Amino acid sequence: MNRKANNRKERLACFIRDVWDEGDADAADAYVAPVYTIRHDPGDPWDGAVLDLDGFKDRVRQSRAAFPDQRFDIQGLFEDGDSVVMTWLWSATHQGDIPGFPATGKPIRMSGATVYAFDADDRLTSHWQITDRLGVYQQLHANQASSNP
Amino acid sequence: MNRKANNRKERLACFIRDVWDEGDADAADAYVAPVYTIRHDPGDPWDGAVLDLDGFKDRVRQSRAAFPDQRFDIQGLFEDGDSVVMTWLWSATHQGDIPGFPATGKPIRMSGATVYAFDADDRLTSHWQITDRLGVYQQLHANQASSNP
Repeated sequence: MNRKANNRKERLACFIRDVWDEGDADAADAYVAPVYTIRHDPGDPWDGAVLDLDGFKDRVRQSRAAFPDQRFDIQGLFEDGDSVVMTWLWSATHQGDIPGFPATGKPIRMSGATVYAFDADDRLTSHWQITDRLGVYQQLHANQASSNP
Repeated sequence: MNRKANNRKERLACFIRDVWDEGDADAADAYVAPVYTIRHDPGDPWDGAVLDLDGFKDRVRQSRAAFPDQRFDIQGLFEDGDSVVMTWLWSATHQGDIPGFPATGKPIRMSGATVYAFDADDRLTSHWQITDRLGVYQQLHANQASSNP
């Protein structure tokens, strides 16, 4: 494994920690290219979108709003060519309202896999992602049922 | 990229074609290690299972029964260390009954990402997989609704 390979894995892990875990949307300036494409992300409101940096930061803020203590537990990082694939487990407390699912204060877990592409300056240019969104809805429904009087 | 890297990507593509697309379960003999672990595969009936070759072939036959014309369209292959990650689109005709979902003869599509691990003999030893199973259930429900009199 060469030095650049390790750098990109480390950069990706730092991006996830700073931007998605800690919620510092402005930290995206250091990691994300001026044009970022969401190539495939079923169920994500931005699936197919091409975002500038402000758009990227809006997505971070809106995506985190209901789950402000979210954490990604990285399971694996696989680098090949311009891409790093990340497999992950995610956990959060459902603290904000989602359409159809008022906040319950209960824990939610999710797993997923994401292919991130880098440009020559080691900035993120796109992702292709699958999440187990059915698993999330099952937990949201179960939590809501047990929260109703 | 070294020769071995290309070999494993090619071997994986051949495994997918022979075993999962064509449905030749016995072809697994050439690709799968004597012990195969399904490390993570939410919604798969074999999630967490450790299979011998006969068990692996049973999973292939049972998984394909409702979708005998299934095809994987490989979107990307990413090799790092002992692993090859495959991103994929899947399509099939719903030709056999699934619990709760009688056959409709209608097309179903799915996307997913799978991390396959290889042993020193280039045999598959495990996978870690995410599929967009919510998308599948949405299609099954919609097809069933439109098939009912």
